[in-house]
Amino acid sequence: MGAERMVIVGGDAAGMSAAMAARRRRGRDDLEIVAFERGPYPSYSACGIPFYLGGIVDPAERLLARTPAEFAEHDVRVALRTEVVAIDLGRRRLTVLDLVTASQNEVGFDTLVYAAGAEAILPDVPGAAACEVIRTVEAAERFRARLDDDEVGPTAVVIGAGYIGLEMAEALAHRGLRVSVVDRADQVMTSLDADVAARVRRAAEGEGIDVYLGVSVDGIELDRDGRPQAVVTSAGTFAAQVVVCSAGVRPAVRIAAAAGLTLGPTGALAVDDHQRCPGHDGVFAAGDCVESHHRVLGRPVNIQLGTHANRQGRIAGTNATGGDVAFGGVLGTAATRVCRTEIARTGLSDREAREAGLDAVSITAADKTKAGYFPEVGEIHTKVTAERGSGRLLGAQIVGAAGSAKRIDVFATALWAGLAVDDLAGADLSYAPPFSGVYDPVVTAARVAAKAAAEARPKRDVA
Amino acid sequence: MGAERMVIVGGDAAGMSAAMAARRRRGRDDLEIVAFERGPYPSYSACGIPFYLGGIVDPAERLLARTPAEFAEHDVRVALRTEVVAIDLGRRRLTVLDLVTASQNEVGFDTLVYAAGAEAILPDVPGAAACEVIRTVEAAERFRARLDDDEVGPTAVVIGAGYIGLEMAEALAHRGLRVSVVDRADQVMTSLDADVAARVRRAAEGEGIDVYLGVSVDGIELDRDGRPQAVVTSAGTFAAQVVVCSAGVRPAVRIAAAAGLTLGPTGALAVDDHQRCPGHDGVFAAGDCVESHHRVLGRPVNIQLGTHANRQGRIAGTNATGGDVAFGGVLGTAATRVCRTEIARTGLSDREAREAGLDAVSITAADKTKAGYFPEVGEIHTKVTAERGSGRLLGAQIVGAAGSAKRIDVFATALWAGLAVDDLAGADLSYAPPFSGVYDPVVTAARVAAKAAAEARPKRDVA
Repeated sequence: MGAERMVIVGGDAAGMSAAMAARRRRGRDDLEIVAFERGPYPSYSACGIPFYLGGIVDPAERLLARTPAEFAEHDVRVALRTEVVAIDLGRRRLTVLDLVTASQNEVGFDTLVYAAGAEAILPDVPGAAACEVIRTVEAAERFRARLDDDEVGPTAVVIGAGYIGLEMAEALAHRGLRVSVVDRADQVMTSLDADVAARVRRAAEGEGIDVYLGVSVDGIELDRDGRPQAVVTSAGTFAAQVVVCSAGVRPAVRIAAAAGLTLGPTGALAVDDHQRCPGHDGVFAAGDCVESHHRVLGRPVNIQLGTHANRQGRIAGTNATGGDVAFGGVLGTAATRVCRTEIARTGLSDREAREAGLDAVSITAADKTKAGYFPEVGEIHTKVTAERGSGRLLGAQIVGAAGSAKRIDVFATALWAGLAVDDLAGADLSYAPPFSGVYDPVVTAARVAAKAAAEARPKRDVA
Repeated sequence: MGAERMVIVGGDAAGMSAAMAARRRRGRDDLEIVAFERGPYPSYSACGIPFYLGGIVDPAERLLARTPAEFAEHDVRVALRTEVVAIDLGRRRLTVLDLVTASQNEVGFDTLVYAAGAEAILPDVPGAAACEVIRTVEAAERFRARLDDDEVGPTAVVIGAGYIGLEMAEALAHRGLRVSVVDRADQVMTSLDADVAARVRRAAEGEGIDVYLGVSVDGIELDRDGRPQAVVTSAGTFAAQVVVCSAGVRPAVRIAAAAGLTLGPTGALAVDDHQRCPGHDGVFAAGDCVESHHRVLGRPVNIQLGTHANRQGRIAGTNATGGDVAFGGVLGTAATRVCRTEIARTGLSDREAREAGLDAVSITAADKTKAGYFPEVGEIHTKVTAERGSGRLLGAQIVGAAGSAKRIDVFATALWAGLAVDDLAGADLSYAPPFSGVYDPVVTAARVAAKAAAEARPKRDVA
């Protein structure tokens, strides 16, 4: 009798985390592990791509967490340029297509981890296929080679003003292109409240990036060789030799749904807290393609973040090999640095809290990143959302200078533990002049939030 | 009938926080507030003094949180160069000595906040009075003027290798002096475990500072003008024209104890959780001179930190004016930057946990401050102490490159909330390449600690 076989659909963060977790628990003679990946690289840092394009990280190989050879050392086989085109859960067989030879094969499995990730949403307009969609290292290398080519024009449009769109815009501006960002929404980064997003917009504009909001794209004008010449929008036509699309993603669930795996209310795959696909023994899913339990909302969400993908993959790989580990859910904690400004969020924004029917109260505290007299002190703006009356922390958003973003982790930890803002306001956090004022900005913001949340309560002092 | 009068003994962090909190609650016609301060400045950043000496912050006035004129704007009177020499709690009168005119007066009060701080411990050896003790802005200005004088010699000894001693040593080295640090203990920074402290020692030595541990000081040799020439120690004689003493402090409780206020087991003033001195209505104490409840140890401790002093002062001022706010206790969270190395701690070290009779298990995780491929990535070493079996977090210590220290606040928040390390290991913290790897070093260290703490438990997986 041969070894058991685990197959993994998708060789990026979630899939390869599952592979490595499984291998740590089961030896090569006991378990064969094969991951199928459409692209030419496994397990890369998608979040690092804008920094590679901007020339901050070089070469692209540095973005790979592990090379195929390193996986091979752990007896994890990664079949690259190989696409899983069908899953037969009854017969426990995959149909895989070799994208190089175009040959198709069947591969049997005992356990399956579905980690196909997410796919870009392109605007449904003429010429959209000429947009650059840079979600892989391969695409980034090709795009950067094009940018390095002298023939590329001086003007770029980025469609989508989410954090990735802004990171892309910054990378292009950093390379000397004139960059406009257009978005249908009336703010950048819709995961932030509008007032917080306005600070991010100003930061982008401060770096010379033009931001056009509430603008829909009607088409991409192409030259006779099919290369972009301009972007036609509701606000006029923008000349652009480079058009990057970062207009959002959707979970890549087509093959899984066709195989009979259950989709949840968000359109992503439903999984239980062990990353199991309900009703299918030995079938797991993880990463951008699945729903996760949101600890504040108390319902499933589909949020694409590398942190969730890595952890869910690890848990899927552990449980697929006989382990028993639960995923604790998500808060949607995220951070980025755009145009010399650090941005972070966790939990619910004020808008999200209200949309969820919560009686939310939000405050914003302006503060300093270091002691006021310390060199290179900068501004930090912290918005805290709490439940009126109870003071339960619901979420936080931070925009500021260097040293701002990682402070979100204190709010995330407080949210994780279910603290109220007045409890957080009393927490014994660290202080030294190079790092903060004597009251950390987190503490000050929590205190202001506690006062605001308490206004509806019977008299209670907050010192 | 005149207004009520609040008097404050000591015009630094705790005392002036009390004054401002009281003023926010009660107007000038309702409450007179007078603070008595021995020195020429109120409310300065003691933690900023080493940075002033090192020339990073200039001039010294920048270290003042508020000037006397600013306090006057809030109708808070600060009597500078005025020492409280006796307190009569029965007659509710202070005896105060004007240090300029040497005149003595009595001042009545309705409420009292005792915030006299701490005083330096000098070695009990010949010549000790010639040591520089730099605990005030005034002393720092005098000392810096002396350093600016060409006649000062090229060699300095710092007695005491705690964090302030090391900060002082760095400041002197930064000014071009050859600096040796001597300490009786067999490690620097005894609030850290020995293995963690060894990294700090190496950082100091890397900056050219000589560190001599397990060395006692036998005397200071003076020249005929009473200026230091050498420090005589158990390890030999060190030539030194500058001798700085940072050999610890003790709570300044003499006047309070003489007045009948109760001292606790640590030798500092006993207070309840409202900063009240038990048995004396309207008498409060706050800051370096009081005991605080340690939330992990469950017993009172005397730790001198600006964070505690400010918060306790604010609470004392609030409660002294009819408020009702409790101090939540301390974790001893502290951070510093010495010799380009960031250092932080919270809760209990491994040694402290064992001394407290806890069944502690500690691990150290080596990690990176940013994504491994990101420019200026540095090392971070995180030591986590947890209770064996339960996995309850007991404390953490961090030493590392830029971006390391403030991560201690995540541990502090988790400690504040009473989380176990496996719960913290699952927390949804932020990630972006400029700030961390996909698993924050805190999460990775918590996960390693969870595995170690679980070893004594029935089988339980940690993914």
